[in-house]
Amino acid sequence: MKVGFVGLGQMGQAMAGRLLEAGHELTVYNRSRAAAELLAARGARVAGDPRRALDGEVVITMLADDSALEAVWITPGLVQKMPPSCVHLNMATVSLRMGKTLSSLHRAAGAGYVSAPVFGRPPVAAEGQLDIVAAGSSSAIERCQPLFAVLGARWFVAGVEPYLANVVKIARNFMLAALVESLGEALALARKSGVDPAVFLEIITGTSFDARYKQYGRRMVEKDFASTFPLKLGLKDVELALEAGADSGVPLPTASLIRDQHLAAIAHGFGDQDWSALGEYIARRAGL
Amino acid sequence: MKVGFVGLGQMGQAMAGRLLEAGHELTVYNRSRAAAELLAARGARVAGDPRRALDGEVVITMLADDSALEAVWITPGLVQKMPPSCVHLNMATVSLRMGKTLSSLHRAAGAGYVSAPVFGRPPVAAEGQLDIVAAGSSSAIERCQPLFAVLGARWFVAGVEPYLANVVKIARNFMLAALVESLGEALALARKSGVDPAVFLEIITGTSFDARYKQYGRRMVEKDFASTFPLKLGLKDVELALEAGADSGVPLPTASLIRDQHLAAIAHGFGDQDWSALGEYIARRAGL
Amino acid sequence: MKVGFVGLGQMGQAMAGRLLEAGHELTVYNRSRAAAELLAARGARVAGDPRRALDGEVVITMLADDSALEAVWITPGLVQKMPPSCVHLNMATVSLRMGKTLSSLHRAAGAGYVSAPVFGRPPVAAEGQLDIVAAGSSSAIERCQPLFAVLGARWFVAGVEPYLANVVKIARNFMLAALVESLGEALALARKSGVDPAVFLEIITGTSFDARYKQYGRRMVEKDFASTFPLKLGLKDVELALEAGADSGVPLPTASLIRDQHLAAIAHGFGDQDWSALGEYIARRAGL
Amino acid sequence: MKVGFVGLGQMGQAMAGRLLEAGHELTVYNRSRAAAELLAARGARVAGDPRRALDGEVVITMLADDSALEAVWITPGLVQKMPPSCVHLNMATVSLRMGKTLSSLHRAAGAGYVSAPVFGRPPVAAEGQLDIVAAGSSSAIERCQPLFAVLGARWFVAGVEPYLANVVKIARNFMLAALVESLGEALALARKSGVDPAVFLEIITGTSFDARYKQYGRRMVEKDFASTFPLKLGLKDVELALEAGADSGVPLPTASLIRDQHLAAIAHGFGDQDWSALGEYIARRAGL
Repeated sequence: MKVGFVGLGQMGQAMAGRLLEAGHELTVYNRSRAAAELLAARGARVAGDPRRALDGEVVITMLADDSALEAVWITPGLVQKMPPSCVHLNMATVSLRMGKTLSSLHRAAGAGYVSAPVFGRPPVAAEGQLDIVAAGSSSAIERCQPLFAVLGARWFVAGVEPYLANVVKIARNFMLAALVESLGEALALARKSGVDPAVFLEIITGTSFDARYKQYGRRMVEKDFASTFPLKLGLKDVELALEAGADSGVPLPTASLIRDQHLAAIAHGFGDQDWSALGEYIARRAGL
Repeated sequence: MKVGFVGLGQMGQAMAGRLLEAGHELTVYNRSRAAAELLAARGARVAGDPRRALDGEVVITMLADDSALEAVWITPGLVQKMPPSCVHLNMATVSLRMGKTLSSLHRAAGAGYVSAPVFGRPPVAAEGQLDIVAAGSSSAIERCQPLFAVLGARWFVAGVEPYLANVVKIARNFMLAALVESLGEALALARKSGVDPAVFLEIITGTSFDARYKQYGRRMVEKDFASTFPLKLGLKDVELALEAGADSGVPLPTASLIRDQHLAAIAHGFGDQDWSALGEYIARRAGL
Repeated sequence: MKVGFVGLGQMGQAMAGRLLEAGHELTVYNRSRAAAELLAARGARVAGDPRRALDGEVVITMLADDSALEAVWITPGLVQKMPPSCVHLNMATVSLRMGKTLSSLHRAAGAGYVSAPVFGRPPVAAEGQLDIVAAGSSSAIERCQPLFAVLGARWFVAGVEPYLANVVKIARNFMLAALVESLGEALALARKSGVDPAVFLEIITGTSFDARYKQYGRRMVEKDFASTFPLKLGLKDVELALEAGADSGVPLPTASLIRDQHLAAIAHGFGDQDWSALGEYIARRAGL
Repeated sequence: MKVGFVGLGQMGQAMAGRLLEAGHELTVYNRSRAAAELLAARGARVAGDPRRALDGEVVITMLADDSALEAVWITPGLVQKMPPSCVHLNMATVSLRMGKTLSSLHRAAGAGYVSAPVFGRPPVAAEGQLDIVAAGSSSAIERCQPLFAVLGARWFVAGVEPYLANVVKIARNFMLAALVESLGEALALARKSGVDPAVFLEIITGTSFDARYKQYGRRMVEKDFASTFPLKLGLKDVELALEAGADSGVPLPTASLIRDQHLAAIAHGFGDQDWSALGEYIARRAGL
């Protein structure tokens, strides 16, 4: 396929390389030309102007952040300059606000647009093992499928509105940050209480967390809160953690905030429902 | 094996039943005798006094909480009445303070003691599929192994000091609470931003979190913070989540606190180290 | 007046001394007798048993915490041993739970009881300049008035149920803690952003906070939320603080949590009401 | 004095009116001209272009937020167009980032600049009773003094760098937000625990908080942490509040986070120092 590629940082470099290896015909653009030249040696055509990248079936952007996208794509009016034959495939992580702006700019210009941020770092990209979350019209997504097949181990569709893919990406990244934080707090508690951290890690990863994400997630989504483990017992467990933290002298800020959420959820009548009903309290707090 | 069993709530009932099925000889005690009688029909000897449960090789306690343990086990002086031939195997979740109290009471009395709290609910217990975290002297743990084999799918050793098993249990429960909270916040963000929650759940559980717990955990334990994804980019991701929450009107308290931890970690020089170095900041904040 | 005094730590010592100076006739008791002997020199009668302190019109307790009160007052059955002519005046800070326990124990025993925790440290007590928050029946409080007049600069009545005074004391102490925390965060922001901290302090204390406590408090109590400064502008101010903190590298955890409370309050329709309506959201979150 | 005035929202309107009453000669500009015309009736000259406002001794801007300032002042290049005889006096609240941008833009252009945000709402402005926090060179501030005298009840100098005034304004607003939040939490606790909220408010405002801001602030600034009330007792008070909240079913998120700060401060050796040392822990957490 004839593909434009704009933005050749570490991720862009790895992804464009992978596409070249798979036999796609690439026109590449980068603000500092040196990064583009690296790909010329591997068969890419180097464009001095990003407009040149618009004459394929798909133009991929992989720009570092909102302001790079603003500078390279929006301000020069590329949305308006896209030919009807081309679909814009934005694979970078952008803010929700920028995601919405891009959705509406392309709609207004009648330009094809798919937002498809990825999970994975450059080496994973180079091996075509990314996870891709796409959103856009089905015809636009269909156009991009051969590229997803080369770049990704898996790909998912988040909805028709392109910015919905940005929401999913942002929300999952947040979940990873929460994982890092809670793991760090738990390890600090274990270490300061005398548990060998390597033993602790072996034990806690000896059983699956994935199963719990699925189990609690299903209940939250289906609002199935018939209790197997009531929320008020969850509060008891969180209080045991806070007491242990106080005894060992370890601040557990995540546990502190979760305790407050439980108190509020109980005040709103969720105490005897399943632990997952905490998600329903959280949703109501957001006005849902 | 000749086994005493004290505390026949839902979990105790299921565990004692499983042990009877496996051919162990049980003497059971419960404060309200009705629960004990249920097991008599399945072959257990019912004791009217918990002291009768001390004449086997192991006496298991599965009492509801600290105060039940205080009332049934400690105040009546059972620790001091245990014969040298018997090992106390406490499989209930207790506070760290109670865990330490039990450790020292048994040591002072020269009584064998293993703390081995379990993960899993009654139906899981009835099928012998619990996860067991044990701590105690190797000889005492060896004595309990035939019982672990019947009750558990897996079992782990947390250390020699019995209360270390309580720490692990408490810390892992806290991690589950953090999982529920962060999942609830992420779902609220997704829903209020227009993503179909079932689609969101399918996508985020389409890839493994377990691998991340292992990856970040290993780095924290080995203090291997050579960057593949620097902490300051983690902050950027958290800020994208907070911005999205503000745009959609969704409070994300976990993201808020994680942001502050990142700012503090960066102020302490961890900005260019791997994201997992957040765990090191958290440990230092605890005085480690 | 003939007064018993139980508990002669630093505060008790100062208060008992003040009562002696004012001409009251004291019988004092302390677990370690040395503290009591210090007052003997100033005219107190030293009791070897706290029961001896019950034969006056009022017996004051000033014990360090819940467990001291448990050990010295409750377990030995002093509540039941109080003669009808005596009123128990507990001036120490205890937990709400202990406050309720004391209220009901005395009611059950038909014993007079006033809870009257104080604000102020030992030197303030020695000069009779404490602030006293009392709760109890009007006749019991009337009995204690001559003592309040000697010990306090001001005294307030929180209600008829004695434990209500404990609530007020606990809640006000929490407000002081919040004052320390927010002042610390604001100073850290100012310092790291280049403001001379002494200048900062002079400016922020150059205008009154007391007026604001009164103004916002009145609106919360009267639920008068007609806007003069809408809550959504309060959110804007909090976000300016968080941005400044991020720019200067200063975590502001109080600002982070307040931001989330604003987002939730706005999601519940309070955005255009006066800033003080945040208090109404907080109350609703507590199930009020 | 001949003064330009740009930005005639509610605050600008009130301030400009006050200046006119005091006899100053105003040239006013507002994006929607209607607001300017209101002042014409009171003697102001209405400018159709903000450049006309630059020909006095001082030009005051009172624009709503960063983006208004960007659109009206920065993008049209007014900084560069200011004659040497004029000083720019920005009395609006802007972000720290914008404050720094303005400081450096004016410095680069050699234009006089004072940042002087105000405390107070429109009616207070109309009566010339604002509190003003100014920063800038002493000569530039001297130029503005006659205007401060008309608009303010008090005015303070935060430093020579203009953006320092923005820091002070932002930090003090944050402290007010923290006051509202902690007052709301304390009231919720009192109400749900049975205290009459009006009585509670009367008691807690019956003694001064101002004195505490000064006392703890002085200690933080002078790093005078010789204990009169040790930090670890502060932790005890916060835990009493959290227990009371749990008993009454009231989440106290501010208390939760303060508890964690205390645990961390104690882990860093501040437990026996004065409560105000919490500020020192907070500063160190920020890398100070």
